[in-house]
Formats: sequence, structure tokens, C-alpha cells
Amino acid sequence: MSSVLVTGANRGIGLGIVRQLLVEPSVSTVIATARNVDSAKELKALAGPKLHLISLEVVSPESIDNAVKKVSEIVGDAGLDVLVNNAGIGYNVPLNGEIDKAKAMEQLEVNSIAPLLIVNKFYSLLKKASAKRGSAQIANISSELGSIESAKYLYIGLPAAVYAMSKSALNMLTRRISVEWQNDKIRATSFCPGWVKTDMGTDAALLTVDESTVPLTKLILSLTEKNNGLYFKYSGEQIPW
Amino acid sequence: MSSVLVTGANRGIGLGIVRQLLVEPSVSTVIATARNVDSAKELKALAGPKLHLISLEVVSPESIDNAVKKVSEIVGDAGLDVLVNNAGIGYNVPLNGEIDKAKAMEQLEVNSIAPLLIVNKFYSLLKKASAKRGSAQIANISSELGSIESAKYLYIGLPAAVYAMSKSALNMLTRRISVEWQNDKIRATSFCPGWVKTDMGTDAALLTVDESTVPLTKLILSLTEKNNGLYFKYSGEQIPW
Repeated sequence: MSSVLVTGANRGIGLGIVRQLLVEPSVSTVIATARNVDSAKELKALAGPKLHLISLEVVSPESIDNAVKKVSEIVGDAGLDVLVNNAGIGYNVPLNGEIDKAKAMEQLEVNSIAPLLIVNKFYSLLKKASAKRGSAQIANISSELGSIESAKYLYIGLPAAVYAMSKSALNMLTRRISVEWQNDKIRATSFCPGWVKTDMGTDAALLTVDESTVPLTKLILSLTEKNNGLYFKYSGEQIPW
Repeated sequence: MSSVLVTGANRGIGLGIVRQLLVEPSVSTVIATARNVDSAKELKALAGPKLHLISLEVVSPESIDNAVKKVSEIVGDAGLDVLVNNAGIGYNVPLNGEIDKAKAMEQLEVNSIAPLLIVNKFYSLLKKASAKRGSAQIANISSELGSIESAKYLYIGLPAAVYAMSKSALNMLTRRISVEWQNDKIRATSFCPGWVKTDMGTDAALLTVDESTVPLTKLILSLTEKNNGLYFKYSGEQIPW
């Protein structure tokens, strides 16, 4: 029975992952975080003995420190088995358009630096779980748009260069964790949830939240050493870097 | 006869590239930028009719705007043929060490966002050159440490995760330019200068500045459509993303 933390759980893909985790029998503890859990109505509606809500501002080191303390109280000596870095934002602008530096920086802050700070500060709790159960997992919710290799083929007029840069940086974080923390058996994997009908994906998207997050959640829960430092679609298909 | 701009030209690899450009017969105009050209002694010592010095703070949109104006006066209707994004910094810290958020952000600001802002603001001058001569080139000085594919093999205890993230983001910029600006014939290529004896590379490095920058400069000047959106070592060997 494992504990799983999901950031950005108040809506979209994060909410979908939490919903699925709550019905997965192998999961005993679901810790859902959002910037402001008090206003996260859909998340609060899922209340039950497995679910714990914690307010977390992912770009704030102090807020992450507070979250680590609260999670530590919930999971105790068992540590945290699975950390899902899901919180993210999208900033679309053509490379020859009006680029707002503050928005470009915020894109990297939320999508790349926040996951870096979170894995850094949750290291001890992940290591505890790894020592108890043989491994701990970090799932970074990236995007296929972050694939540098595929960028030539995926460009369909979507001016997502800055978003793509933030996800490439996140993918490098995945890869570096898989190397730097190999001996700790803290593993990391990047995922593309697909193009999903969320606030970011818009209604034009191909997948409902459940069509993405049901298989994605099962994939996250089935991670083994074999997947360490790799990059997958929600469907399990591997993506090149 | 072409015009080439190099950022971060006051020392190390940028200075080496400028030195080589000055002796390359195909180059008529070398524009070297540094945060403060007045204090760039070695750069000033290279003074001559081919060399133009411009102060440029790469993370400042206003400073880039000013540089664009000055470069425009220098190159006129011919536009800018080659833009070398070389300015960069390194921040080394283990993923489970004390990560300073401001330093991590600065790493991405200088190495990833600054090149984004620079290519964005120099777009018109690059497009002018491309219209006149058939193409314009952007050379992004990245690092093999930015290769997500190679990260498993390149890790030798160097805690360069944040630096690597910044170079992966830069590599995605290269790749996106090659796609978004394909019709403008503004091409982009990422380069690894190798491990060079500079302030960043330290004296332990394998290569002298010239051993890197002489072949690197020749490579940059020989870029064709074939190299667009790819990633090379200073020696010409291709690097996987």
C-alpha cells in the first residue's frame, strides 16, 4: 500500500489523477496539493479517509518546506512512495511575436524550477520510502511538446516554443534524477498526458480527462527500474528525448 | 562577406570566437558584445576596422533593444548574417544539496531566456540578411551536458543538473527556430564547445580556448541547410538531443 502526492490537483489532469488514485486498491494515501485547497471545490468533493489536502505554492521554497512537514506527519516513517509533479502552466507566443520576458520566466519557474525545488525538498521522504520498500518514484508530467527530437514533426502552427523549452528542461530533470539518485533507488520518469480537454488543452482537445488520467495513473503506479529516466505517453508508448 | 555578432565576447569562448572571426577572410564585420565593453580589456586590444564593440546585458530587453539599434546602424540594409548566442553562466549543485532558487532561476534566465529574447529582437535583422543572401544563421553555444539522451553516460559526479536543464531548454530553442523560421531561412544550430580552459571550465579542462574556438568558428561559418536544427561538438561530431 503506497502513498502518492500530486501537485496542481485542483483541476484538469491533476484532479483526474487524484480521482483515479482514490479507486486504486494499491494506494493507501493520496496527498493532493493546490495553491489554495480551500477554494478547490471539486477536490474537496472527493473527501474520504484516503485523501489529504495540502495547500502548496509550487514556486515558493517556504511553501514547499511547509508541505514537506505536513506530508511527513501524514506518512510518518514510511516516507513518500510516489511524487507526481503535475502543476504547470502554458504560455504560447510565436518566436517572432511580442515575447513578455516576465511570462517567459514564469513559464520556466512553474514548469521547470518548481519541480526541481520540490524533488530537492522531498528527497528525504522519498529516500525513506525507498529504504523501506526498495524504491520511490517521481513522475514528472511533461508534454510530448518537450521532445526536442520530435519538435520537427510536432509543430503544427502552435506557437509553444517557450512551453516546449520548459518541458525540455523538466525532461532533463527527470533524466538527471535517474542518474544522480540511482543509488538511492529514487527513480524518475517523464510523461505526456496527451492533448486533454482541460483549461490548458481547451475543448478542441482529443481526449477527455479520464481517457488520459486512467491509463496514466495505472502507468505511474506500475513503474519499475526498467522505466527509470525515460519518457512515455499516457498510453505507454515511449517518446524520444 | 558576412557580419557576425557574438554575445559574452569579453572572455573565454566568446573572446576566442571573436579572435578567430577577425582572421576569417569571409567575415567583414564582427560585432562583439559584453555586459560592459569599457572594462573588456582583451576585447579592446583586438581593435581594428572589422571589430565593433557594443555593451549588451543579455537578460535586459531594453539593453537588447539598444543593441539592435546599434547593430542596425553598423550593418544597414544587409542585415545580420550570423548571431552567436554565447553568453552563459554555470551553477553547480547536487539535486539533493542546498538549491538556491534565485541562482537556479538566474541560470535559466541567462542560458535559456536571454537567447530567446535576443533571437526574438534580432529577427528583423536576421530576416534582412536572409532575404539578401539566401539564409541567416543562429549558433547557440550550448553544452553536451544539455543532451538529455547522453545524460546517463556523461554524468561523472559533476552536479550540473540545473546547468544541464538550461542547456536542454536552449537546445529546444534551437530546434523550434529551425521549424518556426524555416520559411524565413533563418537557421539555428546548437554547439558544444567542449571542455575548455576558461573561468567556467577551470584549468583542469582538456582544451585550450583556441583548440575549441578555431574549429568551432569555422564550423559556424560553414553552416548550411543540412545542419539546420541540429547539435554538434566543436569538432563537427553530431550530438543526440
